[in-house]
Amino acid sequence: MTLPRRGRPGHDLDAVLAAAVTLFNARGYDATSMDDVARSLGITKSSVYHHVRGKQELLRTAIGHALDGLDDAMTQVRGLADATALERLETLVRLSVLVLTSRLPYVTLLLRVRGNSAVELDALQRRRAFDHEVTALVKAAQAEGSIRPDVDPATAARLLFGMVNSLVEWYSPDRGNAGELATTVTALAFDGLRPRSP
Amino acid sequence: MTLPRRGRPGHDLDAVLAAAVTLFNARGYDATSMDDVARSLGITKSSVYHHVRGKQELLRTAIGHALDGLDDAMTQVRGLADATALERLETLVRLSVLVLTSRLPYVTLLLRVRGNSAVELDALQRRRAFDHEVTALVKAAQAEGSIRPDVDPATAARLLFGMVNSLVEWYSPDRGNAGELATTVTALAFDGLRPRSP
Repeated sequence: MTLPRRGRPGHDLDAVLAAAVTLFNARGYDATSMDDVARSLGITKSSVYHHVRGKQELLRTAIGHALDGLDDAMTQVRGLADATALERLETLVRLSVLVLTSRLPYVTLLLRVRGNSAVELDALQRRRAFDHEVTALVKAAQAEGSIRPDVDPATAARLLFGMVNSLVEWYSPDRGNAGELATTVTALAFDGLRPRSP
Repeated sequence: MTLPRRGRPGHDLDAVLAAAVTLFNARGYDATSMDDVARSLGITKSSVYHHVRGKQELLRTAIGHALDGLDDAMTQVRGLADATALERLETLVRLSVLVLTSRLPYVTLLLRVRGNSAVELDALQRRRAFDHEVTALVKAAQAEGSIRPDVDPATAARLLFGMVNSLVEWYSPDRGNAGELATTVTALAFDGLRPRSP
């Protein structure tokens, strides 16, 4: 199983993006200027404009990097031939944890988007499409009898990804291996905190 | 089992607080002025100052309303004589969901606090103390054999409350009864999405 890589920007743009995302997350998008981005990199503003047309393009590219990661995870899951709905859902949770840990500041930015511009509204729409597909997977798993029938699929999907997305609030690479964390999240989500008899 | 009520402000202050919190959540604390708060209530700024000394006091009181609710839930749980650690943890999750749903905008504000002032740093410290007590409960439940031993207690506590706290992103009263939601959250957290054999 490989992590999605689509949407990874080139090296120089990478540095500009990383600096911008750090500032957006720390002070907010509105409070960050292109001057601030240039200053944090120790380069001139015109060097920044060599890579991007403006602040809104930085936001679109940064959010896109997070959304592309999640969409690629969904694409991989859709392509799992012969997998049950439960296996697809487990794989999606696992891949999503890996996307969040490897693109942490980008997903942090994505999850703070509130729809204040066309770029943000597009992002919310892509998030909604993702959520709907998660809900459909929960429904399909209920239909095959592998997920408890007594929970509303949309609520289960939101709680499941509520747990996954909480990583942006507390995860840091020194809290342990991302693969192990993905295993823990998947185990808790599907088997719960209480021990199961074998 | 009753919901904690400590910290509930008086009626007039209530209206000022509710208006302020709505604005803080929509535009951010920094971007909101006392003028904005007065205007949104259709009263003069001096009427607002009749109730509170300033914007920082509004923030402290609003965040305190959320924290008091969670701390009261913890106090109730500590007072459960003869309860196992697992029962305490389940009760804490249930009460926390009820606090979140009944004080939604206040908890939303609390969860966005990043430590930009003394008020915010105090709030982060109270959140950390709460988190530590949740981690201790998970550890105690593991020691009694009622929570799986293969997860790190701090990680389990963060994922558990990550799921609970996600409510601020998607819950609205028309998504169903808060008590039923508390039951669903507790069931998923402790028993998982997969059906258990009876």
